[in-house]
Amino acid sequence: MKDIKFKEITIIGPGLIGASLGLILKNKRIAKKIVGIDNSKKNIKDAIDNKSIDEGRLKIDEKIGRSDVIFICTPVSLIDSIANQIYPYLSDHSIVTDVGSVKNCFSAKTISLYDNKKSFLLPAHPIAGTEHSGAKSAQLNLFLNKWCILTPQKKKKKQVSIISSIWKKIGAKISIMSADQHDKIMSITSHLPHLIAFTIVGTAFKIDLKKKKELINFSAGGFRDFTRIGSSDPKMWVDIFIHNRKYLLKTLKNFSSDIKTLENSIKNCEEKEIFNILKKNKEIRKSILKISD
Amino acid sequence: MKDIKFKEITIIGPGLIGASLGLILKNKRIAKKIVGIDNSKKNIKDAIDNKSIDEGRLKIDEKIGRSDVIFICTPVSLIDSIANQIYPYLSDHSIVTDVGSVKNCFSAKTISLYDNKKSFLLPAHPIAGTEHSGAKSAQLNLFLNKWCILTPQKKKKKQVSIISSIWKKIGAKISIMSADQHDKIMSITSHLPHLIAFTIVGTAFKIDLKKKKELINFSAGGFRDFTRIGSSDPKMWVDIFIHNRKYLLKTLKNFSSDIKTLENSIKNCEEKEIFNILKKNKEIRKSILKISD
Repeated sequence: MKDIKFKEITIIGPGLIGASLGLILKNKRIAKKIVGIDNSKKNIKDAIDNKSIDEGRLKIDEKIGRSDVIFICTPVSLIDSIANQIYPYLSDHSIVTDVGSVKNCFSAKTISLYDNKKSFLLPAHPIAGTEHSGAKSAQLNLFLNKWCILTPQKKKKKQVSIISSIWKKIGAKISIMSADQHDKIMSITSHLPHLIAFTIVGTAFKIDLKKKKELINFSAGGFRDFTRIGSSDPKMWVDIFIHNRKYLLKTLKNFSSDIKTLENSIKNCEEKEIFNILKKNKEIRKSILKISD
Repeated sequence: MKDIKFKEITIIGPGLIGASLGLILKNKRIAKKIVGIDNSKKNIKDAIDNKSIDEGRLKIDEKIGRSDVIFICTPVSLIDSIANQIYPYLSDHSIVTDVGSVKNCFSAKTISLYDNKKSFLLPAHPIAGTEHSGAKSAQLNLFLNKWCILTPQKKKKKQVSIISSIWKKIGAKISIMSADQHDKIMSITSHLPHLIAFTIVGTAFKIDLKKKKELINFSAGGFRDFTRIGSSDPKMWVDIFIHNRKYLLKTLKNFSSDIKTLENSIKNCEEKEIFNILKKNKEIRKSILKISD
């Protein structure tokens, strides 16, 4: 891989993901200067303090045109409008990319807007994160050995190879697919598990028990592990659920129907049917672990 | 706690739980002799080889009357019939107990049978285990700092205190409650999470994707953790689901209704409603961890 070096890179929204990106971009000397833009003064201060950005700004203006690459690292619900807002300031060679968990987050309007100019829009999603948020939680190796999925509207572009090179240089593995493929996969491997984890805690606490303490004492037997992922930022997940509702609702429908099948078999004490379902799924799970280890 | 010492203890079904119990009972010198009964020659051999039992038998007969305490450690579906089968051989001072994950596993007939005699039946459930099974997987410290729930039909019995003492001596913490209370709590903290974990892997593999490999690659983002508990023994879980169907189906109904509420809010893009659900459940989860840590 050739050495990549940029004069300036801007990170819009240097939170956990954005600030971790700033840290590693500087560590790998990929850009001479990292600019962070955030409307929170506190977050800009945190990002400057831990050296994940060199310069902080509170709003988007024409100065963004100086950057070669712009990473939009805001919540999913803001990505499309920010891509629109920065568009007039971009130089011809700019590449705009993002880190959102949903890849159908760009409107047709935005996509055709970027089609008219040389500046390039490349949707991306590094599958990395922790339950913490904000620049103060930034980690240098957050993306090491993690997958970064790129969902370019146009294939074989020079810009796709530039963004790929950046992610590879900071330790991530690249996968290229369509936005639909991405959102479909994430609906089952990430979004549905989070939806269930968030729901089941509420269901548990509605149970008719004199002492809730007893529920808490015995939560180690599956329940606690199971809800671990439900401790993520609620605001972020509202955005993800709503923006990926097309595939999430389809996946949820399949899941509910599979639960119903098992429920009916339990109701009718159909031992053999239940056994076959559990056995088959245990085998599938084994094959998943085998291949991904 | 006074020193407890028995001449002989029998473990019917020295699998993971039973053989681990044998190991620690011997280690703590609670019984002079541990007898294991199992219709699998292989399992009896494993249990003798790793010294979790002193003597092995392939069937239940009158010799069981020599034991002071009998632990039934078979799958849930066999517990009731074994309690019946051993009854004629018991001595007046025998205590029969079990380790099943469902505590409404004894029929009214069995309960009244034991009521007629001095020998005592005490349903129990140590909340411990691994994804492995069989005597060969026995672990000396399987019960250390784990809860053991006792669900006596009659309270304040000398026998309850004897069984409590045994569990305490081998490192477990004791909680006493009704069988209904136990089965209600377990339906949400253990049985529903297992049911979901078993189901979701199947749902995932029904997704319309050209390459299943892509699903596997990205299964680290929630999915893999989430399904970890789905690798347990299917046969054991068929028994648990069927024997606790009364409470499991109720809990499942509540869960499905909570999922439906969230599903509708996502369908209608009701950001505020979704946010409130996620935020509330994140707070409940935090309080669970705080108290149980």
